[in-house]
Amino acid sequence: MMRTTAVKNATRKVLVGWAKESRRYLSSPANCKHNHRSQSQILLSPPLVSLDLPEIWGSDSSHFDPHQPPSSITRSKVIDGKSIAEEIRSRVAVDVKRMKESIGKVPGLAVILIGRRRDSLTYVRNKIKACEEAGIKSALAELPDCCAEEDVMTALLKFNEDPSIHGILVQLPLPEHLDEEKILNVVSLEKDVDGFHPLNMGNLSMRGREPLFVPCTPKGCLELLIRSGVEIVGKKAVVIGRSNIVGLPISLLLQRHHATVTIVHACTRNPERITCEADIVVTAAGVPNLIRSSWLKPGAVVIDVGTCPIEDPSAEYGYRLVGDVCFEEALRIASAVTPVPGGVGPMTIAMLLCNTLDSAKRLYGFT
Amino acid sequence: MMRTTAVKNATRKVLVGWAKESRRYLSSPANCKHNHRSQSQILLSPPLVSLDLPEIWGSDSSHFDPHQPPSSITRSKVIDGKSIAEEIRSRVAVDVKRMKESIGKVPGLAVILIGRRRDSLTYVRNKIKACEEAGIKSALAELPDCCAEEDVMTALLKFNEDPSIHGILVQLPLPEHLDEEKILNVVSLEKDVDGFHPLNMGNLSMRGREPLFVPCTPKGCLELLIRSGVEIVGKKAVVIGRSNIVGLPISLLLQRHHATVTIVHACTRNPERITCEADIVVTAAGVPNLIRSSWLKPGAVVIDVGTCPIEDPSAEYGYRLVGDVCFEEALRIASAVTPVPGGVGPMTIAMLLCNTLDSAKRLYGFT
Repeated sequence: MMRTTAVKNATRKVLVGWAKESRRYLSSPANCKHNHRSQSQILLSPPLVSLDLPEIWGSDSSHFDPHQPPSSITRSKVIDGKSIAEEIRSRVAVDVKRMKESIGKVPGLAVILIGRRRDSLTYVRNKIKACEEAGIKSALAELPDCCAEEDVMTALLKFNEDPSIHGILVQLPLPEHLDEEKILNVVSLEKDVDGFHPLNMGNLSMRGREPLFVPCTPKGCLELLIRSGVEIVGKKAVVIGRSNIVGLPISLLLQRHHATVTIVHACTRNPERITCEADIVVTAAGVPNLIRSSWLKPGAVVIDVGTCPIEDPSAEYGYRLVGDVCFEEALRIASAVTPVPGGVGPMTIAMLLCNTLDSAKRLYGFT
Repeated sequence: MMRTTAVKNATRKVLVGWAKESRRYLSSPANCKHNHRSQSQILLSPPLVSLDLPEIWGSDSSHFDPHQPPSSITRSKVIDGKSIAEEIRSRVAVDVKRMKESIGKVPGLAVILIGRRRDSLTYVRNKIKACEEAGIKSALAELPDCCAEEDVMTALLKFNEDPSIHGILVQLPLPEHLDEEKILNVVSLEKDVDGFHPLNMGNLSMRGREPLFVPCTPKGCLELLIRSGVEIVGKKAVVIGRSNIVGLPISLLLQRHHATVTIVHACTRNPERITCEADIVVTAAGVPNLIRSSWLKPGAVVIDVGTCPIEDPSAEYGYRLVGDVCFEEALRIASAVTPVPGGVGPMTIAMLLCNTLDSAKRLYGFT
C-alpha cells in the first residue's frame, strides 16, 4: 500500500483547508461588487491577482460551488454588448473629466495605422471617435502600405517618449513585409494598452503575477460574462481558436477565473463533441456559422468573437460582419448569446478606453 | 441565408489549403529525425517555431491525421525516464567535450540555494553532480534561510555578469520572507535556463514566438512522449495542475504541438470524468495516488510529474517519492506510464544540462 497514514492525514487537512480557503478567497460577483469595488471602478471584473487561490486539491471537487447565482443580476437571452459598452464608455468619460478637473491631465491614446485596409480604417476611425467622446486625447500616425520598418519605429519611439500619450496601439494586421513581433516588442510596456507584449502575456499566464494590461477583446468578453451574471468558477469553458490576440488571452483569463478550460483549434478532432459539453463557449475562429446548435449544450453561454466581413452591397460600407455562431440556432439552445455585430465588438473599444485611462491613472497615481 | 457563395468558396479554399499546408509543415517524429535533425541535435523534440501551422479551419478536422504511428519506435509499457535521461546526458557530455576541444570553452551553471530544505539539498546535489559528469562547470551560492533579499540579489547579479556562467538556477521554493517574483525577474534572460521569466513564458505561450528556454520539467515530459512514439497532434491532452513551473508550461507546450488541451485544477468539477477522455494525461497535482484506474481511458499515455515526499524510515534519506498516479492501476489500463521515481525526475536534470549547453552554444555561436 502506497497510501500511508501520513498521506491520509495530509489529504484530510487538504480538504478542510481547501473549504476554508475557498470561503476566504472567493466571493460571488455580487459580493465583489459590494465589498471590493472602489467608487471609481468602472468594470465589474475584479482585479486579477485577487483571483489567485491556493491550489489545494480535494477529492470532492465535484461538489465545489462557492458561488450562488447572484440574484441581483438578471440575464437576457441576447447579451447586449452595445449598451454595456456605452455604459462603460460614459463611466470612462466621467472619470476622465474628474481627472482633468483634479490634476489638469487627460489620458492620451496614439494609434499607428499602416496602409489603407478597409476594415482597419473603420476600426481606427471608431477608436478615435470613441476617444473624442470620452475626452481622451488621440493621436494618429498614418503610414503608407509600403513604408519601411524604420518609419514605423520612428513613429513608435516618438509616442513612447511623449508624456501626454499613455497608450499606444499598432493597428493589426500589418502589411506582410513588416515584422509584427519586432514592432510590437518596441511598444513601451507601460503604454501597451493592447496587452500584446510577451511580457504582459507571460504575466497574464502566470499565477501570482499581474500584467500591466489585459488585451481588450478578451477583457471585454470577461466583462460581458460577469455583467450577465454568468458563473465562471468551476465551469467548463471551451475557447475556439488560439490566436495571440483573442484565443490565447481569453483562455488564460478564464483559467484565472477558475474555469476548466479546453482550447479547440484547427487540429482538434471532433471539435463539436468537445464544445457541446461546455457551459461557456468563447469562439474566435473567424469561420462564419461554424457553431451550429449541435455544437451547444442546452443552457450554455456563447460569446461570439468571430467577425468575418462578408460582401453585402446593401450594407453601408459594402460589407457586413458575420460571427462564428449561427445566431438563430444558438438563440434556441443557449441561455445567453452575443450578437454580431453589437456583442463583443463594441466592448473591445470600451476596454481600450479603460486600459488607456488606467495607464494614465497609474502614471499620475490618480485613483 | 447568411452563408453566401463567397463564404462557401472561402471554405473550399480553406480545406484545400489546409490539407496542403499540413503536409508541408507537419512531418512525423520519424521524418523529423531523418530530415531536420542536425548531427549535434540531442533531443528528438523539434524546435518550437517550426511547429507553427497556419490556423486554417476545415469542417472535417475530425479526419485530420498527418502522423502515421512511427513504426521505428516501439513503446514499452513503463517509460524509462532514467535510461532516456542517461542517454541524453551522455550526448550532452559528448557535445560539451566537442565544444571544449573546438573553442576552449565549457558551459557553466550557477545554482543559488537558500536554506537547508532536505529536498532542495538533494535536488541541488544531484544537479551539481550531473554537471560534473557532463563536463559542465558548476558554481553554488549557498545562503542561510534568514538571508536578506539584497544578499540573493548580490549573488544573482554576480552570476548575471560572470561570462563563464551560461545558466542560473534559483532553487525553489524560497523561504517565505523572500519575494520569488522579484528575485526570478532579476535572472538575466539569456541565462534563465529554468525558463521561469515571464518574458520566456509569454514567448512560449504566443504563436510565432520562441522562448530562449523551455522550462526543464515540461520539456522533459515532451521528450519522453516523443521518444516513446506518442502522437501529439490532434490528441486530447489533459494537464492536471496549473503551476507556473509545470502545469502551465506543459499545457502551452502540448498546445504548440497541436494537442487539444484541457487544464484540470483544484476548482474543476468532476476531474475524473474529464481526465478519463484524454489520450495523454500529464499530472502535476502533487497529490499522492490521485489518479486511479477509473480516471484513465484504456490506452492512454500517462506522464506523472507528481513527486510527494512520504516519510519512510527504510529509505536512504528517510523518505521516498510518491507520484500522483496509482502506478499499478495505471499499468493495467494505460498504454504507457512513467514511474516515480525514475520517470520525469531524471529528465528534469537532463533538460537542465541541455538548456545550459544550448545557452553556451548560443552565446559562442557554436553549432
